[in-house]
Amino acid sequence: MRPLSLLSRATKGHHFSSEFVRSFGSTSSALRFQPIKASKKAPVKMATSTTKTGQPLDRAALEPVLRRRMFYTPSFEIYGGERGLYDYGPPGCALQANVVDLWRKHFVLEEDMLEVDCTMLTPEAILQTSGHVEKFADWMCKDPKSGEIFRADHLVEQVLEARLRADKDARGQTIEVDEAKEAKKKKKIKDTEIKKLDDAVVKEYEETLAKIDNYGGDELGDLIKKFDIKGPTTGADLDPPKAFNLMFQTQIGPSADKPNGYLRPETAQGQFLNFQKLLEFNQQGMPFASASIGKSFRNEISPRSGLLRVREFLMAEIEHFVDPKSGKKHPRFEEVKDVKLTLLNRKTQLSGSTKPDVLSIGEAVSSGVVDNETLGYFLVRIQDFLLKLGIDHSKLRFRQHMANEMAHYAADCWDAELFTTYGWIECVGCADRSAYDLTVHAKKTGAPLVVRETLAEPLVIEEYQIDLERKKLGPKFRKDAKAVEAAVDALSQELREKLSLELEKNGKIEVQTPGVGSGTTELDKDLIKIEKRKRTEHIREYTPNVIEPSFGIGRILYSLMEHVYWTREGDGARAVLSFPPTVAPTKVLLVPLSSHPDFKPFVKKLTTRLRRTGISNRVDDSSASIGKRYARNDELGTPFGITIDFQTVKDGSLTLRERDSTKQVRASEDEIIAAVKSLVDGEETWEDVFKRLPVFEGQDLE
Amino acid sequence: MRPLSLLSRATKGHHFSSEFVRSFGSTSSALRFQPIKASKKAPVKMATSTTKTGQPLDRAALEPVLRRRMFYTPSFEIYGGERGLYDYGPPGCALQANVVDLWRKHFVLEEDMLEVDCTMLTPEAILQTSGHVEKFADWMCKDPKSGEIFRADHLVEQVLEARLRADKDARGQTIEVDEAKEAKKKKKIKDTEIKKLDDAVVKEYEETLAKIDNYGGDELGDLIKKFDIKGPTTGADLDPPKAFNLMFQTQIGPSADKPNGYLRPETAQGQFLNFQKLLEFNQQGMPFASASIGKSFRNEISPRSGLLRVREFLMAEIEHFVDPKSGKKHPRFEEVKDVKLTLLNRKTQLSGSTKPDVLSIGEAVSSGVVDNETLGYFLVRIQDFLLKLGIDHSKLRFRQHMANEMAHYAADCWDAELFTTYGWIECVGCADRSAYDLTVHAKKTGAPLVVRETLAEPLVIEEYQIDLERKKLGPKFRKDAKAVEAAVDALSQELREKLSLELEKNGKIEVQTPGVGSGTTELDKDLIKIEKRKRTEHIREYTPNVIEPSFGIGRILYSLMEHVYWTREGDGARAVLSFPPTVAPTKVLLVPLSSHPDFKPFVKKLTTRLRRTGISNRVDDSSASIGKRYARNDELGTPFGITIDFQTVKDGSLTLRERDSTKQVRASEDEIIAAVKSLVDGEETWEDVFKRLPVFEGQDLE
Repeated sequence: MRPLSLLSRATKGHHFSSEFVRSFGSTSSALRFQPIKASKKAPVKMATSTTKTGQPLDRAALEPVLRRRMFYTPSFEIYGGERGLYDYGPPGCALQANVVDLWRKHFVLEEDMLEVDCTMLTPEAILQTSGHVEKFADWMCKDPKSGEIFRADHLVEQVLEARLRADKDARGQTIEVDEAKEAKKKKKIKDTEIKKLDDAVVKEYEETLAKIDNYGGDELGDLIKKFDIKGPTTGADLDPPKAFNLMFQTQIGPSADKPNGYLRPETAQGQFLNFQKLLEFNQQGMPFASASIGKSFRNEISPRSGLLRVREFLMAEIEHFVDPKSGKKHPRFEEVKDVKLTLLNRKTQLSGSTKPDVLSIGEAVSSGVVDNETLGYFLVRIQDFLLKLGIDHSKLRFRQHMANEMAHYAADCWDAELFTTYGWIECVGCADRSAYDLTVHAKKTGAPLVVRETLAEPLVIEEYQIDLERKKLGPKFRKDAKAVEAAVDALSQELREKLSLELEKNGKIEVQTPGVGSGTTELDKDLIKIEKRKRTEHIREYTPNVIEPSFGIGRILYSLMEHVYWTREGDGARAVLSFPPTVAPTKVLLVPLSSHPDFKPFVKKLTTRLRRTGISNRVDDSSASIGKRYARNDELGTPFGITIDFQTVKDGSLTLRERDSTKQVRASEDEIIAAVKSLVDGEETWEDVFKRLPVFEGQDLE
Repeated sequence: MRPLSLLSRATKGHHFSSEFVRSFGSTSSALRFQPIKASKKAPVKMATSTTKTGQPLDRAALEPVLRRRMFYTPSFEIYGGERGLYDYGPPGCALQANVVDLWRKHFVLEEDMLEVDCTMLTPEAILQTSGHVEKFADWMCKDPKSGEIFRADHLVEQVLEARLRADKDARGQTIEVDEAKEAKKKKKIKDTEIKKLDDAVVKEYEETLAKIDNYGGDELGDLIKKFDIKGPTTGADLDPPKAFNLMFQTQIGPSADKPNGYLRPETAQGQFLNFQKLLEFNQQGMPFASASIGKSFRNEISPRSGLLRVREFLMAEIEHFVDPKSGKKHPRFEEVKDVKLTLLNRKTQLSGSTKPDVLSIGEAVSSGVVDNETLGYFLVRIQDFLLKLGIDHSKLRFRQHMANEMAHYAADCWDAELFTTYGWIECVGCADRSAYDLTVHAKKTGAPLVVRETLAEPLVIEEYQIDLERKKLGPKFRKDAKAVEAAVDALSQELREKLSLELEKNGKIEVQTPGVGSGTTELDKDLIKIEKRKRTEHIREYTPNVIEPSFGIGRILYSLMEHVYWTREGDGARAVLSFPPTVAPTKVLLVPLSSHPDFKPFVKKLTTRLRRTGISNRVDDSSASIGKRYARNDELGTPFGITIDFQTVKDGSLTLRERDSTKQVRASEDEIIAAVKSLVDGEETWEDVFKRLPVFEGQDLE
């Protein structure tokens, strides 16, 4: 039984029952969102997180800031909104563009990947082959009285948790909970009178919750009956769970009389379908990787957890194709082998612990914790990328999938999880999917999704070959002749060896021929000859394996906003978002001291110069105090501010303020612009600049 | 009657009958794809285009290059493909990313626009308000025998054109046509035996073709009957035309029992819905612009013309919100007023000519050809953008919409059209949409999509106010009292003035009261008083107008590829794509002379240095000759090549080759890298570099 943090799991993001994952591979080709494993010790505790400055992280304070500053906003709000859909406003949009830009540089350009942009509209046949049409589903339950629809596993979970809480209350146990949240929850679930449960029932509930991700539809239906779970608002008996496919269906073209296509649930399929063309583009060179950035869609039954579980989301996926015979070595592994990662492996999880190991990737691969070099190399590159963005290293871990979370064909799979107030959230999946995807599409279409490699030295193969005396075979077996021939052709090398000895010894052999006579056919020397011969091969043909790092950009953005958030004490705690300069939505705020017309030409000139230097900037010439303007700006995460004051008019000098320290320096326009450029390009830190330029302690900015 | 180039029009891209546009505004908020107007003189001539080097532009030669080099490729090809859907391969993807990046810098950053990223999934209600649910449709015809579906206007057009061609053949007239194409066409359309038509019939066909975009469904049905048009493959009578909505429908969430949403047909609606939040974000400042880059979807009845008419496409749209009282002046108009544009205005088109005027935008606005400064400013900015990309100036024109092409509320609308082998293609639309969009959404939702401006000086308004003696009104009119009161409230200032004089003169007046008694109600002095009074207003409330530049990125990409394409004579004509360095997919190709191991460290060092400098590059270390490798690269449009040879191993010097001239220089690594950077940043031209660095005439590259 796997340890599960019950409350945080309730908001853990996408997941599929392990049964589903076992029998079906393709969801794992997308982000495979998994239960969050945390300590069993705090089953009903909300995930608590702290800011980098050590303050308790209060989501209820952060969210309004993010919405007010338009990092994101619910879509279609004036029409009452639509759950699970969010728009990004100007700072969210710029942040997203900067993260995507960094991703492209970090992965696509740095590793010479072949980027493709495939359509979201996808004909049914492709998703039938991949398995999504049949299996990409969650279980839902309908309340026949109210028409409400619930995700079956979520409902069972919610009700049992509520009953356990009520039991704890009855037993007089104190539990750390978010009072307001809990009150709201209780209101939603009728079944929560304070009521003590039998010890055996408590145990049964806890065991059920621990396995909640593993149940199929029938089992969930049984649990609902067994535990007498009713419609939460009506008390009515629920309809049995039904599978709800998570793909959005649509009709492509006017001739179909029913839906014949879907919006893609992942970008991966488009990459697999283009494999041949990409291999050709790469002049047959192996290994190589393709990459794709684009929207994917999942029709969640009941979206929640803000940006973490949405119906339309940006993904960035890599498919690294590799020769399985290479041992999945990676040419640049040497460069990264000493980098340390926080790894929560399968064995540790099985033991019921969530204490990760900190290991160098070199050790992890050589000791077999991580399956191979290529997978290990990508784990390091993923960590590098997340840290560059400003992700808090102490809130990042790699969790290995349990055997029953993975598809049957997968060799290994690790998720990069980020800790947030929703618990540990899977933000990047990194799976070794073996040759599964190319194989199924090749089988379905007949397209040769393979690599043909000219062997440097022809391969001489020694094997048992069979000659049949066809002229005699026909008259003897008549209509069964073909079946006999096929059965003989299909004989393995091992059998052939055994049979050749028999033939030599007895002058005849018996061959299994299903459907012919008694199922066994005798063949004598006149009919069959088995000999060991040599054959020379010049070409080796193989289906590559694929290592797939898959990024949920929206989840990374949300986690990042939590990780860089803190509050500055002052009159009222003021929010600051400490994005690193590289990803900050805007790099510089220009603040003229007042609306005095003398300042205007300086502002205009500065704006133009900064823009030419490639530094995004905004002017705030509102009438608010400088302190207020900077406070607004700190919420937007702009790392630098330049003030234009009367001294500027006199001597052209400017002050430069840094967001996190609020310290300022004063220097000439040229020096300030050069400093900002070097800060944004990451060539200098603020400490460097602060040391070398004159400190300014002029206006009181608050 | 408007002149129409019949054949090129057949491949003109999206269009809607003018009736549709007249009665329905919202399609014009998207790219409003219009018939291509060309000279009447060549009704059945294919659009011929020439390369910048003066060669005839042969699409049949270009397209295989673009596909082989994976600029784009039909989606799902191994599954038999899906019409109207294309994937971008690595160079297409990089080209698209560079164009989008330039767009963002040129518009969003340069003009401080507020970029938003809204969802593609859109609930039905929004598109009902915008009018798309009811009106965003084309007319389709079904062949009941074969089940084939045709776009009704296209079918009429194809058949009449085929008959006219057959008539010309019969008359022995030679016409310039693409023989292969025509043969294919004839095969498709049964009805093309060489057959002379009556002169009157020819005239009728030509008139019908000239108006083909203006017919509604019933009219198209009548034409099909009248001209005896049958199913092209079966000869069967066709079903009457039916409207086919061009939006992809889908079901959001599990509870709906029928489709309740669509994929957006344009990005504009998301921007309008966020207007209030954006105004707040902009601290109530006006004017301001929002912008959005993203995919939109149109379920074409029968997609054709490659990348020009697809079902899923990238758009970039701007909504510039402006106070209608400002006269739509633009603060930066002065900076652009002398820029010349090629303008094909409405009047010229009405006269049957397609000869555009070349005017400065200052003249165009002051003479009223272009409606206002803001619209004019954007036309210049659009031209700047297209020229930066490498669009051929001689193949760019701005065409004004005819009155019946525009929505009834639009003030003016111009399309930037690019000339290609498909004729003139609308690639950017730029419309002044007045206050339409914000008004309809505000009306539907009650959201105040308005600007509230505190007046610097309170406005004193003198107006006729009406007092009703309510105590007497009730008893007198009983159930009609409210209707009478409403009718009186609704009286205009003009009527009030007139009525006040009457009331004074006669002691009574008559008011129109629809639905009350005879429809006219008499009111006397005891019941009503009308007086001129003064009122002071401190706040002005208004709905902004919107100027909307809307870019079809895919169409621009395709046109650009045609504009930069030419062939170099050699052994066989070799394709070259002369992208400017800024947008070229890859900037530098690194070519080691051979696979000699001595070259490897130089290649690796160079790659790393170039990447750090932000210059994308690729290595071609295949065994092909240097000439072959450069030829491959010219097809990919890479502007520069660096060769690593034995001299490099000796002294570290490199050769730098320019794609278009194939000229080379040789210098130290530092000098070469600095030169490439300055070329890519646009600080120097190749001529500059070629003058200052030593020319190299070493290896024969062919």
